[in-house]
Amino acid sequence: MKIEGRNAVLELLKTDKEIDKILMQKGAEGSLGRIFAMAREKKVRVQFADARLMDKESETGRCQGVIAFVSEYEYADFSKLCAPKEGGRLVIVCDGIEDVHNLGSIIRVAECAGADGVVIPKNKSAQVTGAVVRVSEGAANHVQVARVPGVNYAVDELKKSGFWVYALEADGECIYDCDLTGDVALVVGGENSGVSALTKKKCDKILSLPLKGKVNSLNASVALGVAAYEAVRQRR
Amino acid sequence: MKIEGRNAVLELLKTDKEIDKILMQKGAEGSLGRIFAMAREKKVRVQFADARLMDKESETGRCQGVIAFVSEYEYADFSKLCAPKEGGRLVIVCDGIEDVHNLGSIIRVAECAGADGVVIPKNKSAQVTGAVVRVSEGAANHVQVARVPGVNYAVDELKKSGFWVYALEADGECIYDCDLTGDVALVVGGENSGVSALTKKKCDKILSLPLKGKVNSLNASVALGVAAYEAVRQRR
Repeated sequence: MKIEGRNAVLELLKTDKEIDKILMQKGAEGSLGRIFAMAREKKVRVQFADARLMDKESETGRCQGVIAFVSEYEYADFSKLCAPKEGGRLVIVCDGIEDVHNLGSIIRVAECAGADGVVIPKNKSAQVTGAVVRVSEGAANHVQVARVPGVNYAVDELKKSGFWVYALEADGECIYDCDLTGDVALVVGGENSGVSALTKKKCDKILSLPLKGKVNSLNASVALGVAAYEAVRQRR
Repeated sequence: MKIEGRNAVLELLKTDKEIDKILMQKGAEGSLGRIFAMAREKKVRVQFADARLMDKESETGRCQGVIAFVSEYEYADFSKLCAPKEGGRLVIVCDGIEDVHNLGSIIRVAECAGADGVVIPKNKSAQVTGAVVRVSEGAANHVQVARVPGVNYAVDELKKSGFWVYALEADGECIYDCDLTGDVALVVGGENSGVSALTKKKCDKILSLPLKGKVNSLNASVALGVAAYEAVRQRR
């Protein structure tokens, strides 16, 4: 898998993940120098290339002069995310997030809000590719992402483990009236379809943000940001 | 100006704004039928075109079969946004948001959170184009956007009008410790540069979101979403 972009590679270098090599554009300047120094320190092989080769190797077309080659993304063990934790867990479940940009944004938000993990289904969902890692600004290297056979399976298992599972959707209880401490999972749906009907039924509650305007929804990662940070606020 | 995309045109039709004509792809289905019915009701001229012409007319390349032609975006009067309001105003000031996608997202968030307006500088900033309206899902048709000569001018004027002006940036006071009721303006900076040093100095306070992970920032529209919704929560 290729991890592209300066922030994404910097964040990767801060982890213990094995890096096969780093391809860097000749004439390194700015943060590329810092990446080079960190790579040297970690004894990661750095290979230099001209702009043409960088362009050829880049999958996103926006590698900013640096591409790291790593083994496939290492998904976390879902059962570990389900284990209750002192102080309460926060887990994000993605239902039908098919766009890599949305998934990357959601992972970035989850990491910033200190979520314990992100759960994605194996089908009908974007998977963690190099592009997702890049959009997440490298957050996918720090937050655990687990794959499950399906979203409903994840909801059932989380509930069995004692989690409160809430779907973020329209026409539910106002999120500010809900206790988000303890072990909580937030289910976020794709921009077009939202959380599926069956999943909504399985969830303990549907939680909504007050929409004060005429446009009827927030972008998925913004809605998740507001909800996850409400959990952060309540847990202070 | 061209407004493209189904949601953006639907939201436009809900306003009183004058529409010169709507160009629609032949073989209308789904929400295009609804747009057609609304246009007919409002006596807006609808012209049909084949896919090739739609592609040619589209500026974004993703018009979803519908393009509305309207006069240039009508900016709001900044001085009106500055007037104190019972229950408190919420104004969003953009500092160096140069990317149309970011500006559109910020306008969408502002509208959903019920902000009274969005302020952008005339220079070094994306302006409200058709693409911005589309990304905002039409929110730019509902929320007032005002242009000012510069961000520092806007901050000074807002403070003179009795607003509390807060910059959203790192290393400030935790946002949850700040009173966001009353007349409040939130200054949000571009992804790369953030809020400028001088503007930060002029603001009453710098407010920060707690970052629980290793990635050092949230996307501008997500950060604004969390902050604006904290104001919504406090004002309930």
